[in-house]
Amino acid sequence: MTNHDAMRLASACAQASLGMGMRLLSTAPGTARVGMSVRADMLQGHGTCHGGYLFALADSAFALACNSYNEATVAMGCSIDYVAPARLGDTLNAECIEQSRSGRTGNYDVRIENQQGELIALFHGKSYKVRGPVLAQETSNE
Amino acid sequence: MTNHDAMRLASACAQASLGMGMRLLSTAPGTARVGMSVRADMLQGHGTCHGGYLFALADSAFALACNSYNEATVAMGCSIDYVAPARLGDTLNAECIEQSRSGRTGNYDVRIENQQGELIALFHGKSYKVRGPVLAQETSNE
Amino acid sequence: MTNHDAMRLASACAQASLGMGMRLLSTAPGTARVGMSVRADMLQGHGTCHGGYLFALADSAFALACNSYNEATVAMGCSIDYVAPARLGDTLNAECIEQSRSGRTGNYDVRIENQQGELIALFHGKSYKVRGPVLAQETSNE
Amino acid sequence: MTNHDAMRLASACAQASLGMGMRLLSTAPGTARVGMSVRADMLQGHGTCHGGYLFALADSAFALACNSYNEATVAMGCSIDYVAPARLGDTLNAECIEQSRSGRTGNYDVRIENQQGELIALFHGKSYKVRGPVLAQETSNE
Repeated sequence: MTNHDAMRLASACAQASLGMGMRLLSTAPGTARVGMSVRADMLQGHGTCHGGYLFALADSAFALACNSYNEATVAMGCSIDYVAPARLGDTLNAECIEQSRSGRTGNYDVRIENQQGELIALFHGKSYKVRGPVLAQETSNE
Repeated sequence: MTNHDAMRLASACAQASLGMGMRLLSTAPGTARVGMSVRADMLQGHGTCHGGYLFALADSAFALACNSYNEATVAMGCSIDYVAPARLGDTLNAECIEQSRSGRTGNYDVRIENQQGELIALFHGKSYKVRGPVLAQETSNE
Repeated sequence: MTNHDAMRLASACAQASLGMGMRLLSTAPGTARVGMSVRADMLQGHGTCHGGYLFALADSAFALACNSYNEATVAMGCSIDYVAPARLGDTLNAECIEQSRSGRTGNYDVRIENQQGELIALFHGKSYKVRGPVLAQETSNE
Repeated sequence: MTNHDAMRLASACAQASLGMGMRLLSTAPGTARVGMSVRADMLQGHGTCHGGYLFALADSAFALACNSYNEATVAMGCSIDYVAPARLGDTLNAECIEQSRSGRTGNYDVRIENQQGELIALFHGKSYKVRGPVLAQETSNE
């Protein structure tokens, strides 16, 4: 996988983000900040933002942060804890910070906060550096 | 929250599923099976299905299973492990099985397999039963 | 790392198990069952078994299962969900089942049940196959 | 459960820590720091500290932090990611920081570092506030 491919991957992630109304706020090696406003079509039965959108927001910040080195990586796994509800019109901010990166694996934490700085969700992602088609097959998705 | 609301919630989940081309295959108290075919727009840089779609698929099966009792529940948190890549045209099957349900919390496991029965991803969801608006606020999303 | 080392590792795990009063009930490629009785010194303030012992029990079953192939593996990470309390005198049974094993990673689920078959805890472990000293250093513990 | 019980719980945790050679370095509402030196009997086949000890260390910091308010809490679940190996003689430092605490649940992150400030493991714990015997039974362990 070339640097070009890595850039293309990050770009694809960014486009998916745009599709959901996400905004890339900043990125630097190992970090990324992505914003998203909660729209009416993102609400579910309880009148709060569906968890799937929170996951997608955090996942995008994670993908951008772990692909910020011009080395292609894939996600091995992720977890999310929903802390407080996000509501219609809330402006959410997902900030991803790299906790570790050594050998072929990395660990990344994402905090989603609303416009008042209240914590909405915590996300943890584990990345795996791919070296080429064979190894990409050896592992997994995203 | 009334039974009607609970039904509406499950229905909303099902609709989101339809939007992503998901198919509700079966549901029963504590379980649900949801199908999805991998479309070209679900692929990412590596030519494999974006992890976000796998999460959404598993999350839908989870939401249907934990809301199958006419009691409204919310997700407290989820985790996913990506095991093998899903490819264009693959027909994925997400089966959610309840592992526990007592007091106000429940634990659910989802397996995503492809048309050959190969394991694609493992998902774990933790649910929390809501009793009304106050308690809904006390907890969280989805 | 030789087969001998792998055996020694599994043996060390088994010894740690014995130290905590654990009993290896059965093992086969990809699976293991370990038993433990809840002793007075395992209780904490609430009169229930300390979660640390439940983790150690599940972790032992996981270590034995993922090292059952004569290939040395290490744990990349684990998670545990406490479902119901274990009490003084309970006889716990931890059964580990392999969910996936391909390339260098594996996923294992452990269920801890009491003597009545009630679910006490759910554990998930992720393993990584080590190939030698350099790669062992590249990854991690346990 | 009284404040006295809550204190007794934290004290019991601290005692378990002492049994494994852990040292309580500091504690304040929502946080705790615990130290531990890696002894020969904590090593496993690979010559590195067994993951179970790292879990116990992080778990102790978590228990102290989430019980620092004179309200008894139990763990609902935990996860740990092993980042780098800890070796014989290493002096480990586990610092727990509260990420959220609202309603009855809390989220806590623990970082384990060695004497050079290198990250060894990341731990996440989810707590649940207990209100008395009935609710304690409704939930779970630790």
